[in-house]
Amino acid sequence: MTTNLPSNDRALRERAAAVIPGGMYGHLSTVLLPDDYPQFFDRGEGAYIWDADGTRYLDLMCAYGPNLFGYAVESVDAAAIAGIRRGDPLTGPSELMVELAEQMVGMVSHADWAMFCKNGTDATTMALMTARAQTKRKTVVLAKGAYHGAAPWCTPRPMGTTAEDRANQIFCTYNDIASLEEAVAKAGDDLAAIFAAPFKHDSFVDQSLPDPAYARRARELCDEAGAMLVVDDVRAGLRIARDCSWSVVGVKPDLSTWGKAIANGHPISALLGADTAREGAQSIYVTGSFWYAMAPMAAALETLRLVRETNYLEKTERLGQQLRDGLHDSAGAHGFSLRQTGPAQMPLIMFDEDPDLRLGFAWASEMLKRGIYMHPWHNMFLCDAMDEDDISAAINAADGAFAALKRQRPTLGPVTKLAAFA
Amino acid sequence: MTTNLPSNDRALRERAAAVIPGGMYGHLSTVLLPDDYPQFFDRGEGAYIWDADGTRYLDLMCAYGPNLFGYAVESVDAAAIAGIRRGDPLTGPSELMVELAEQMVGMVSHADWAMFCKNGTDATTMALMTARAQTKRKTVVLAKGAYHGAAPWCTPRPMGTTAEDRANQIFCTYNDIASLEEAVAKAGDDLAAIFAAPFKHDSFVDQSLPDPAYARRARELCDEAGAMLVVDDVRAGLRIARDCSWSVVGVKPDLSTWGKAIANGHPISALLGADTAREGAQSIYVTGSFWYAMAPMAAALETLRLVRETNYLEKTERLGQQLRDGLHDSAGAHGFSLRQTGPAQMPLIMFDEDPDLRLGFAWASEMLKRGIYMHPWHNMFLCDAMDEDDISAAINAADGAFAALKRQRPTLGPVTKLAAFA
Repeated sequence: MTTNLPSNDRALRERAAAVIPGGMYGHLSTVLLPDDYPQFFDRGEGAYIWDADGTRYLDLMCAYGPNLFGYAVESVDAAAIAGIRRGDPLTGPSELMVELAEQMVGMVSHADWAMFCKNGTDATTMALMTARAQTKRKTVVLAKGAYHGAAPWCTPRPMGTTAEDRANQIFCTYNDIASLEEAVAKAGDDLAAIFAAPFKHDSFVDQSLPDPAYARRARELCDEAGAMLVVDDVRAGLRIARDCSWSVVGVKPDLSTWGKAIANGHPISALLGADTAREGAQSIYVTGSFWYAMAPMAAALETLRLVRETNYLEKTERLGQQLRDGLHDSAGAHGFSLRQTGPAQMPLIMFDEDPDLRLGFAWASEMLKRGIYMHPWHNMFLCDAMDEDDISAAINAADGAFAALKRQRPTLGPVTKLAAFA
Repeated sequence: MTTNLPSNDRALRERAAAVIPGGMYGHLSTVLLPDDYPQFFDRGEGAYIWDADGTRYLDLMCAYGPNLFGYAVESVDAAAIAGIRRGDPLTGPSELMVELAEQMVGMVSHADWAMFCKNGTDATTMALMTARAQTKRKTVVLAKGAYHGAAPWCTPRPMGTTAEDRANQIFCTYNDIASLEEAVAKAGDDLAAIFAAPFKHDSFVDQSLPDPAYARRARELCDEAGAMLVVDDVRAGLRIARDCSWSVVGVKPDLSTWGKAIANGHPISALLGADTAREGAQSIYVTGSFWYAMAPMAAALETLRLVRETNYLEKTERLGQQLRDGLHDSAGAHGFSLRQTGPAQMPLIMFDEDPDLRLGFAWASEMLKRGIYMHPWHNMFLCDAMDEDDISAAINAADGAFAALKRQRPTLGPVTKLAAFA
């Protein structure tokens, strides 16, 4: 299956197959992407990435979220490098930890305190533990299909986990108030928390923005039960608002989780909380060898400065809309109909009449050939390093890709690698 | 309690108390250290750290393990910085991931493959999941009191966790073959894994080296049951051997977990495995936003070069023995008797006749005043940046500290902050 790939990627895959289980793992594995997608990359700059064979792409994945201002932003990297050269990590935190906590608390309207960690999963797990410690209850309500990390309690695939790892969880349907109320009723007097994605950004299905009534009802139900409302902003944080993403629907959670973009790719995540959850947060024991390192905190401080002082948010929204409009028109001109869902700056693009994703896969391949790296079943991300010309180039590429797809359509077979997910 | 601290540290603590639950959390919190220990640090270089008020210490904690070759090692940092400037992290891994997997597999005799992650806890959790996926069983045997991370299944304090989080665990006593056999018998036909620290390095109690018969019996029991043997080398890895730490007792695990020092402080951890566990590893879904970043992989490659090409291991063993001998003599000259346990390069120092640690706390304070940062109840670490003069300085400081302790002894009260742990 990889025999037509350029030589460096193919050689790396062969070496990797010997020393990495399955050759690669996790969300950056290309195992569920079209066969011609490169697995290995060489470098990134601004809005572009170069694969291991030197081919350049406009990268609509932005490292699956961390890239908010572009790859290799000088000022952010310089801050991190200065931290590294201060001997990072040390036997205790630096003043940057306090400064970063103060700045995040100042920026996020529901937050009174912050804790820092490394993975998004660390933050969601700490939210779970904090909610249980605070309420002295166990049951959490989550939306079916929502991704909250890859620990045993939440990983989307069950291998290696036990039924006990998933105990005390009740599932509802996102944006469905009746199902949320039913789940909360089922929890009875044991409701510790309601977890919510800021919008529905599950893989393989259309995204949907939060119904404000749903968000408000989640808040009310938590208030009535004395439970914690958690917004998992790991993926969307800083991309929807300069605040928690549910600020746009006027709802303040007790806890919010952050990661990915908060240091523009430097490794740090965070749990933010209101005073309603402080005692619980203070009582749990969580830690990591590298959690208090100053380099990514310095990078986060510089990223937050850019968040405050630039129009990155309005710009990525505008470019996302430009892309959405252009793709809509181009698809229509070639006889295709797209469902482009979610916020324009975090788009998911699916084809109508494409239940097994054969159109999506073939189109993504055609885009890749034209230098645009897109994803057929996961939301994408725009970054501040993109400009109107980049988006125009993507729309031009799409025109060619739709034309090619139209020619291929009669002979396209099902995507066999997705059969297990059908 | 912090009113006598120098002003920068005090001011930072006050600010932190407002925006970080408890003012600080995790293993770098000074809440269970003597009152005069600084919480915040400014920088590190070689074997030394400077606190937020500019006071310099010879650092016997080495960031709780990550510092193996010294703080701010130029060649390691340069490798990481080059990775950062390549736009790290990207939408896929770089060739460095393959190279690092190959090098770790080449170095660690039991390993056929590697997976990389961020926290030590990621690696131990992946070991747990891999063992369960490989064996299709649930029960794991662990040693009472051993630290394997801070996720709900293993965190040493139960707040925020549930009984279900700790299900399917059976505890034995480290180095006690009969108790290990009993635990395995209790697991019956459901034994997925035996977890083992490379030596007993629990907090608050004497360390002990592994009894080779215990290690061999653990291997035999796993072989008989078709279970996985896991050595958790997160803390001790690269400090005992240029291989898995149980190579010194001639026992090969199926899985070993690594972190802390493998990139000299840059954020990366790893799960290494034999082919006996490859299928399980390949089947689990684990990932993290920053796991595939090339900067810490580049740092790890340079650290491994230093591991291969320098005598850091023999040097830290020798310096550790110099420290141990010098402290033994100095303590004896002042009428004190120490228990110095574990490998000399990872020493734990406890006083005889000191059940509530009042001597240990007071002595650590006196050492701190003399510019030596030590820990009264957690193992310490030597690093390659130390030299004979540093150790002599520590022994000289100890002489003054023991003399001061002798004068204080009649008036020392119990350490109230440890009462909860008595």
